[in-house]
Amino acid sequence: MYNIIQVDGGVCAAEGFFADGVSAGLKKNNAKDMAFIYSEDKCKIASVFTTNKMCAAPIKHFRAKGKFKTNFVLINSRNANAMTGKAGVEDIDEVLEALAHTFQAVKNPVMSSTGVIGVRLPKKKIIDAIPLFDLTVKEPMNAASAIMTTDTFSKSIAFKAQLEDGSSFSIGAMAKGAGMINPAMATMLCFITTDAKVKRSVMQEILNEVTQTTFNAISVDGDTSTNDTVMLLANEKSGAFEREAFTEALFKVMHFLALEMVRDGEGATKVVTYNVTGARDDKEAEIVAKALSDSLLVKTALFGEDPNWGRIASTVGASGVEAYEENLSISFNALCVYNRGELLFNEAMEEKAAAIMKLPAFSISCDLGVADGKFTAYGCDLGYEYVKINADYRT
Amino acid sequence: MYNIIQVDGGVCAAEGFFADGVSAGLKKNNAKDMAFIYSEDKCKIASVFTTNKMCAAPIKHFRAKGKFKTNFVLINSRNANAMTGKAGVEDIDEVLEALAHTFQAVKNPVMSSTGVIGVRLPKKKIIDAIPLFDLTVKEPMNAASAIMTTDTFSKSIAFKAQLEDGSSFSIGAMAKGAGMINPAMATMLCFITTDAKVKRSVMQEILNEVTQTTFNAISVDGDTSTNDTVMLLANEKSGAFEREAFTEALFKVMHFLALEMVRDGEGATKVVTYNVTGARDDKEAEIVAKALSDSLLVKTALFGEDPNWGRIASTVGASGVEAYEENLSISFNALCVYNRGELLFNEAMEEKAAAIMKLPAFSISCDLGVADGKFTAYGCDLGYEYVKINADYRT
Repeated sequence: MYNIIQVDGGVCAAEGFFADGVSAGLKKNNAKDMAFIYSEDKCKIASVFTTNKMCAAPIKHFRAKGKFKTNFVLINSRNANAMTGKAGVEDIDEVLEALAHTFQAVKNPVMSSTGVIGVRLPKKKIIDAIPLFDLTVKEPMNAASAIMTTDTFSKSIAFKAQLEDGSSFSIGAMAKGAGMINPAMATMLCFITTDAKVKRSVMQEILNEVTQTTFNAISVDGDTSTNDTVMLLANEKSGAFEREAFTEALFKVMHFLALEMVRDGEGATKVVTYNVTGARDDKEAEIVAKALSDSLLVKTALFGEDPNWGRIASTVGASGVEAYEENLSISFNALCVYNRGELLFNEAMEEKAAAIMKLPAFSISCDLGVADGKFTAYGCDLGYEYVKINADYRT
Repeated sequence: MYNIIQVDGGVCAAEGFFADGVSAGLKKNNAKDMAFIYSEDKCKIASVFTTNKMCAAPIKHFRAKGKFKTNFVLINSRNANAMTGKAGVEDIDEVLEALAHTFQAVKNPVMSSTGVIGVRLPKKKIIDAIPLFDLTVKEPMNAASAIMTTDTFSKSIAFKAQLEDGSSFSIGAMAKGAGMINPAMATMLCFITTDAKVKRSVMQEILNEVTQTTFNAISVDGDTSTNDTVMLLANEKSGAFEREAFTEALFKVMHFLALEMVRDGEGATKVVTYNVTGARDDKEAEIVAKALSDSLLVKTALFGEDPNWGRIASTVGASGVEAYEENLSISFNALCVYNRGELLFNEAMEEKAAAIMKLPAFSISCDLGVADGKFTAYGCDLGYEYVKINADYRT
């Protein structure tokens, strides 16, 4: 038995973690664009990275080091340090050397970047800003806003697990992501801190597992970034651990942040949960759920608040999984609009369905009527704002 | 040796074919919404249909009949007759019976539909309009506009092949398609007529082959319709045939219409040719080319006329094929912006690249530098109009 309660403090909620955000002049108008997470004690690291073959320099740099402990993560926005070759990796070495030079307490620092692809890191600006960091402050909201790019709000959350023996541990996190989000893999930047006393291998195992039903279940535009990173740091300060409680608390953290990313999907006006059931197996349910959350025709119908269930049926059919017109059922929330071959849709029902689609969040459920496979994915609509943001991103 | 020349007459260019379009009141304002193609002689049929599991009633109806000859194709727009179950197939029987009752010359007629999914066919309107058909007229442009849905222009073309022995044959066609177009399969409606004397099996073989590099190489939105149909009718009237000439003429017809579809892509302002070379094999080149033509981030960058080559690199990396940052090259027309790991991009180059992106048609070439696989795909940009069209489609 354990309790899990939401607490304040974001990425600083777990004992011994410090964080802040400053401006290095990468963004306009002195907006915060550089963040750090610092722990007094060195941390074990579990991580999930993009599967993009053009993975960014920070990921190559991290991987080259092998297994190690760190007590410092430096994150910049506005520049992804991707497609920058060996020079991009060397730029990180230089920045991290300057960092170690400024702060003797920093051990094996890690760097992470997000922003435009194919431009060398503005090294000088970043190095010049390092002395602005104060490792004794806990400003998780500053850190969370410094890592934003096209995000319209910062994303931060923390939970505390209270165990039966009176001990407790916390898991806190911050994330950024509003576009270039693909369900096929770990997504965008998310930094999670915990004071739980957890083995590295167990931590990695649980992180992989929870990623599947959280960050890997969301979609904004079906594009997969070069920089996607989920990083979990554990400093063991609480001395407490319980696997089930840890898994549940981590799920709560990651599920919340994943849905926050969808809610902040570029130009999104609604969050839609796709419940797919009755598929041949869970994998086929996942294929359907992600096909729905990725379909441009479904997404634009959502934006138009048009209960065009035909596009849902068509997308199920096009996804390549086992499916039959006469076995399929489709519902908006609890309103069944197509039932195993039966055309139920009429004007009255259209009105009810359209009312559901005006909600900021609702579910679309598809039962394939084939077997017991199931998966839940999360997506958003696609409107003019998405086009505006992405057509003008660099300018 | 043979000559292939473009000729007038669209779907009526081949000898013995008649066609027209009329209004059955399915579209507003008496716009043409019902077309026919009629041949004096019965025709062999080759066809390629959607792979969507929720395929529409007309496709089920056609498949249920097995191999047969026809001399009449009836096509309606505004209603797809998809997700309508057995009733939808029976509706076709009823319409075709009424057709045979009106015109004794009609043998084994075929029906094809395009429009909204999940609404029963407006049978009465269609049957009432049948007597408006005049089987003695050749109005290919009327037919081509009657099958339009969100198309902004009709699509029609014909070529004549002159063989060395003085004989000749023609291939003409009409098509519709502007959205719901996916590179993964045969796409939208295309009706092709020929008076060539060709074996059914050879005709099907050539149609399959040519479909791969034409309709299967284009993408507007990555969604796959329930109704996609390419149908080739041969009445043998010319008595002439030559395999190479037939293949080339059919390619010219289908390539032209495929690019017309892209040019008319919902809201599209430019047509982009994606030349992928140097892939591990042709299949991997195809995966990359289609990933590029489908990527929302690439499509919105095209719309914004932003030479954001980083998104192209990222999409190549995310496509899952063998690729390396240091082997990749990217060009806009002949302008190389990234060369095997070398960052070439600067302000002067950005200006040149932006000028290329303002053209109504240009190419983006990616050499993966892995082996010799290659594929060419065609796509368009995605702008506000796409959202507008698809958010408001049914209303």
